[in-house]
Amino acid sequence: MVDTRGSNLPRLADYNQTVVLEAIRRRPEGVSRVELGEITRLTPQTISNITRRLMSTGVVDEGERVTAGRGKPRTLLQVRPDRWHAVGVHIDPRLLTVLCLDLAGGVHRRITHPTPGAPDPVHAVQLIRDLADEVLTDVDPTTVLGLGVAAPGPIDVVAGRLHRPPQLNGWEDVALRADLHRATGWPVLLDKDVTAAVTGEQWSSEGTRGDFLYLYLGTGIAAGAVLGGVVHRGSTNNAGEVGDTLVTRRATDPDPTRSGRLHTTTLPGSLVRRAAESGVLAATDATDSSGAFAELCRMADTGHRGAVRLLRTAGRDLAAGVAPLLNFLDLGTLVVGGPVWPRLAAHQLPVLQERLPPMLAARDELVVRTSRLAELGAAQGAAALVLDHFLSPRPAGLVME
Amino acid sequence: MVDTRGSNLPRLADYNQTVVLEAIRRRPEGVSRVELGEITRLTPQTISNITRRLMSTGVVDEGERVTAGRGKPRTLLQVRPDRWHAVGVHIDPRLLTVLCLDLAGGVHRRITHPTPGAPDPVHAVQLIRDLADEVLTDVDPTTVLGLGVAAPGPIDVVAGRLHRPPQLNGWEDVALRADLHRATGWPVLLDKDVTAAVTGEQWSSEGTRGDFLYLYLGTGIAAGAVLGGVVHRGSTNNAGEVGDTLVTRRATDPDPTRSGRLHTTTLPGSLVRRAAESGVLAATDATDSSGAFAELCRMADTGHRGAVRLLRTAGRDLAAGVAPLLNFLDLGTLVVGGPVWPRLAAHQLPVLQERLPPMLAARDELVVRTSRLAELGAAQGAAALVLDHFLSPRPAGLVME
Repeated sequence: MVDTRGSNLPRLADYNQTVVLEAIRRRPEGVSRVELGEITRLTPQTISNITRRLMSTGVVDEGERVTAGRGKPRTLLQVRPDRWHAVGVHIDPRLLTVLCLDLAGGVHRRITHPTPGAPDPVHAVQLIRDLADEVLTDVDPTTVLGLGVAAPGPIDVVAGRLHRPPQLNGWEDVALRADLHRATGWPVLLDKDVTAAVTGEQWSSEGTRGDFLYLYLGTGIAAGAVLGGVVHRGSTNNAGEVGDTLVTRRATDPDPTRSGRLHTTTLPGSLVRRAAESGVLAATDATDSSGAFAELCRMADTGHRGAVRLLRTAGRDLAAGVAPLLNFLDLGTLVVGGPVWPRLAAHQLPVLQERLPPMLAARDELVVRTSRLAELGAAQGAAALVLDHFLSPRPAGLVME
Repeated sequence: MVDTRGSNLPRLADYNQTVVLEAIRRRPEGVSRVELGEITRLTPQTISNITRRLMSTGVVDEGERVTAGRGKPRTLLQVRPDRWHAVGVHIDPRLLTVLCLDLAGGVHRRITHPTPGAPDPVHAVQLIRDLADEVLTDVDPTTVLGLGVAAPGPIDVVAGRLHRPPQLNGWEDVALRADLHRATGWPVLLDKDVTAAVTGEQWSSEGTRGDFLYLYLGTGIAAGAVLGGVVHRGSTNNAGEVGDTLVTRRATDPDPTRSGRLHTTTLPGSLVRRAAESGVLAATDATDSSGAFAELCRMADTGHRGAVRLLRTAGRDLAAGVAPLLNFLDLGTLVVGGPVWPRLAAHQLPVLQERLPPMLAARDELVVRTSRLAELGAAQGAAALVLDHFLSPRPAGLVME
């Protein structure tokens, strides 16, 4: 049983309206009322009532009339992208991404900026406000529904705080949601980075349909999943922690309790450290971890053997880390994304594609691919959560400030 | 979005009827129409219509009238347990369990029998038919809805076959569902053992409410989960494989590609082998793996240090194996069950309760407990799937022969 509650009629009407709006939004090329009936299996009368309501609020427009086969011409319905907007913010420990998403899922404008050095959350709140104003240039302020923030976990959803972000030193006592609400005046949602990225992947018309596992590579590593059509959030909205997963029994790491785990073998910081230890990078480079990581990737891109070997070994560890989840969940699609992945994909995607299928207990086929949203997924998802909150009667249930 | 489909009225009526029946079934002490309204949030008129339909088909009876507070007396509604029955069969590689489940979730009668030596599936089908007849003694044959089978995975749900059961040699080409249908004449469902066990745990009035992770210990090891109120099945109904999860970097196993994984460190066969290697069991005992395992558990029960240490070490490996799943899924409850668990619980439950909470990234509290259904869970769940198939408009979607 999904729910102990039944459905009375008013709730049903809301639910059906969301289903119809979703069906229209997913077809940016336009969709006829007849097609909507086929997709949603609702009666023509219900479709007619709902589309009339959606048009009266300006969310949906009638477009061109098309003739298909011998039937009478059909009028195509399309979402009006500029009817509503939301701001999406992704706080990666290194990079701040701010964008404006329209109702059709289009990214109106985007800015990236180095994340302010910790501990400086006060400056960060002001910076986010300024960047949000910037991405909303040319956007009618009355169409902005709110601001969604994707941040590293664990997060305290009830209090709207980052709980104890391992890579954002000094952010523990920041009531980020309340502070951003005060600074911007908008409704503000806070969600975990990987959950936002999965939401973006599911919500976007460029994203992945059906159920999938999502591997997120940022300054940290995490995973998420769409299961039964729903983004899995966990009982405290903190689903997705995978860093402690044991992936290898190589005994090269000095600390035995931490060694051989996903976060010690695959993260940029670890790759740089290992590159320095093995002489692939000059030892001095390791002090600028971010620059050294970029250098390591550049070396691999130009065919440096040691660098390529290092990235491919980390790719094998990634495979060992996600295989147990794919086995347990029995999923046929793995999507990889997050801010660091575009740098690694050329070297690690083939490794995942080659090594994972034989590691799966119950199936022979697996699709492994890079998210088309690339490093924008989490920010897009954060904005999509805001649109969902106001347009769906069954939103994710996040608390809004 | 949960679904691309909307809800038309006839489907809604079915859905609400299931919600009401579920609410009545979960309260064997009886529930009034007013309480049903509070639980399901349906209108009094809808509750009245649905309960009238349920009573007219004999599924629900009116019971005693009670007076609570100052209101007028309320008539309690109860499920009529003997209105429908289903047979549940659990094929563990060692033990066959057959039982009859009534509509209220009561186990009417149960039999256990050693699983026929492989490869002898033909004999097994006849045996299951005979045992099913036996558990249905005194049951009105017209009330039997069908037979559900829980079997080791992976399974081929479409074909109704065991796919390549690692511990049931000779069952690869057996069309178990069709054979059982032919032998018994009943509708037959086939499902994976761990999924059936999770279904039993969720369905039973003695079971676990809310979302949970379920660790299944039989001749093999598996895990399952209820997520968002739904038993997670996976895209091919083969969710739950966890045996390959890397849990330790002890280098004691001769085969490096298989060593240190859940199925090499925690299963009865492995425990017996290790006990023989370390001299806890006499080497000759290891030839009768099942008897030797029972002996090992008896020794631990009476305080034999080497035996206790061996079981507790395996308990630590279990903790290391489920911790990544609890972290990824963010669940606050772990239920442990399956046919082997009652033997191990006294030694391993405290280890799980002690070691798991500090291994969790996002939370401090975790409930770890033994399933109250003990070794009957999978057979109860297999029968519950049959009842659900006929009484719910949203069954698990398994193919029925």
